[in-house]
Amino acid sequence: MNIGVDIGGMSFKYGVVDDKGNILFKNVIKVDKSLSQEEIIINLAQGINSSLADWNIDKSDIAGIGIGCPGAINSTLGICEKAYNLGFENLNICALIKKHTNLDCRITNDANAACLAEARFGAAKKYNNIVMLTLGTGVGGGVIIDKKLYEGNLGKGTELGHMVIKVDGRSCSCGRRGCLEAYASASALIKKTKEELNKDHSSSMWIDIDSNLDNVNGLTAFENEKKGDKAAKKVIDYYVKYLGEGLLNLMNIFRPEVIVLGGGLSNQKEYLNNKLMNYCRKRFFGFENCPEVGIVTATLGNDAGIIGASCLF
Amino acid sequence: MNIGVDIGGMSFKYGVVDDKGNILFKNVIKVDKSLSQEEIIINLAQGINSSLADWNIDKSDIAGIGIGCPGAINSTLGICEKAYNLGFENLNICALIKKHTNLDCRITNDANAACLAEARFGAAKKYNNIVMLTLGTGVGGGVIIDKKLYEGNLGKGTELGHMVIKVDGRSCSCGRRGCLEAYASASALIKKTKEELNKDHSSSMWIDIDSNLDNVNGLTAFENEKKGDKAAKKVIDYYVKYLGEGLLNLMNIFRPEVIVLGGGLSNQKEYLNNKLMNYCRKRFFGFENCPEVGIVTATLGNDAGIIGASCLF
Repeated sequence: MNIGVDIGGMSFKYGVVDDKGNILFKNVIKVDKSLSQEEIIINLAQGINSSLADWNIDKSDIAGIGIGCPGAINSTLGICEKAYNLGFENLNICALIKKHTNLDCRITNDANAACLAEARFGAAKKYNNIVMLTLGTGVGGGVIIDKKLYEGNLGKGTELGHMVIKVDGRSCSCGRRGCLEAYASASALIKKTKEELNKDHSSSMWIDIDSNLDNVNGLTAFENEKKGDKAAKKVIDYYVKYLGEGLLNLMNIFRPEVIVLGGGLSNQKEYLNNKLMNYCRKRFFGFENCPEVGIVTATLGNDAGIIGASCLF
Repeated sequence: MNIGVDIGGMSFKYGVVDDKGNILFKNVIKVDKSLSQEEIIINLAQGINSSLADWNIDKSDIAGIGIGCPGAINSTLGICEKAYNLGFENLNICALIKKHTNLDCRITNDANAACLAEARFGAAKKYNNIVMLTLGTGVGGGVIIDKKLYEGNLGKGTELGHMVIKVDGRSCSCGRRGCLEAYASASALIKKTKEELNKDHSSSMWIDIDSNLDNVNGLTAFENEKKGDKAAKKVIDYYVKYLGEGLLNLMNIFRPEVIVLGGGLSNQKEYLNNKLMNYCRKRFFGFENCPEVGIVTATLGNDAGIIGASCLF
């Protein structure tokens, strides 16, 4: 058994996971942002200690604590170098957890953890080479090669959202222009929805959002496109085109057996996947002879973080 | 000892390579295009047989024959599915070579072979995770992960030249638009040089090419930019920008320890590498904390094909 920890901006989820990917016990603790960053992690360690006692689990039965954390992670050193939402900076999370639990600890990027979970126990468990994209506020990425997580030098690789697909294109949070994230994230979808709303005052989307652009979310365009709204169709066609180009790149670069989509926007499931496959099928490099790369939706949902982190042991 | 074969459009080079990457003997045979594709390969097998006899090498001392071949290769099945220059189509090269030499045979894409050579014995021999780009008529790619060649499903991966960096950009030979190859290949550089020449009739490049656009080659812009010509500078700045964006993508995707540049244009060596590093240093994702990815020039030159193919055993 291992412990998996899913570090989020507001709360930390953790659980005990068996070697079949089942969460046997789990708990959530809120982050007290009035504390120092070190105290926040010590709180987590103490929470784990008392949960294990509550659950009657002996520490000698736990191989280690795996952590999935947003932001810039140095997995080699066990450090979170920067996590904007939490205000972490050069925080040696693994050393603190080890010191206060006496258990071994490993850390990776949260998108990597989700990818590992889907690869071992979720949508991609049948495959050896897998690429995962998480379509949330940003676009995260994970890559599994020969069933192993690929992290790159010092764990800094697979920033798939920061692959430029349009030189001189839309501004990205990373400072470059034209990154996949600037087109395929939920934030990008919302931005594009607002742009098209401003161009078309007869769009049915205006009713949905009660005439207030602040009410636009990641569903607005999808739901109205399904009803036949023209402005919504423009948004979705644009979204599918740019995400499709990103997926084609990942197919040509990795030629994985499958690409797994996770994150909030992946809740469109087959509706989105089918549109993407239609886009990609027409544009595969050497498609006649190339094995088709499937596009599937992540299946582990909110538990993927805990399960994937536990897979670090 | 292994045999490495470098299949080119006009001739096949092969050699006996020891486990330190030294070519002990080598030979070249011309391709007789009047023959059937099967006969061409049988000729190669017979050439290898008689060379081994000439070189006094016993077949029992050879582990196998590795082949690097341009075009669409299915390395799992040992087949060249398509090689335009040679007219090969669904040609089971490995089976023919095995049958006519009684030696084991493996095949990979020529860019993969070059990458393997540089990773084992050339510019990147110190590193574990390597990306290589060959900047020739097209742009080929190879990826080494944990010192092993990564090929993707059925050996169809790492088509790094067919990563779109500009959606709706320049047309590419693959049918998509905006691929790295459409900006970073020698053909793309020549095309851009001609475009800028047509815009600037006072450019010093006109003298170099004897006022004939057919004389433009991959050196024209580089040599005149070094002398301060404005039109040439535009060509080189554009080339560095787009290749730089491609390299940044590969850095963010793989975060390798080093990127190796090969192919004709890599003969610019540090002159080009320094320009690319300057471009990339300003745009690294999370650069403050990220390990810098070096850009180096391939060192094995024309022998890389034979040496890399021999590494398949």
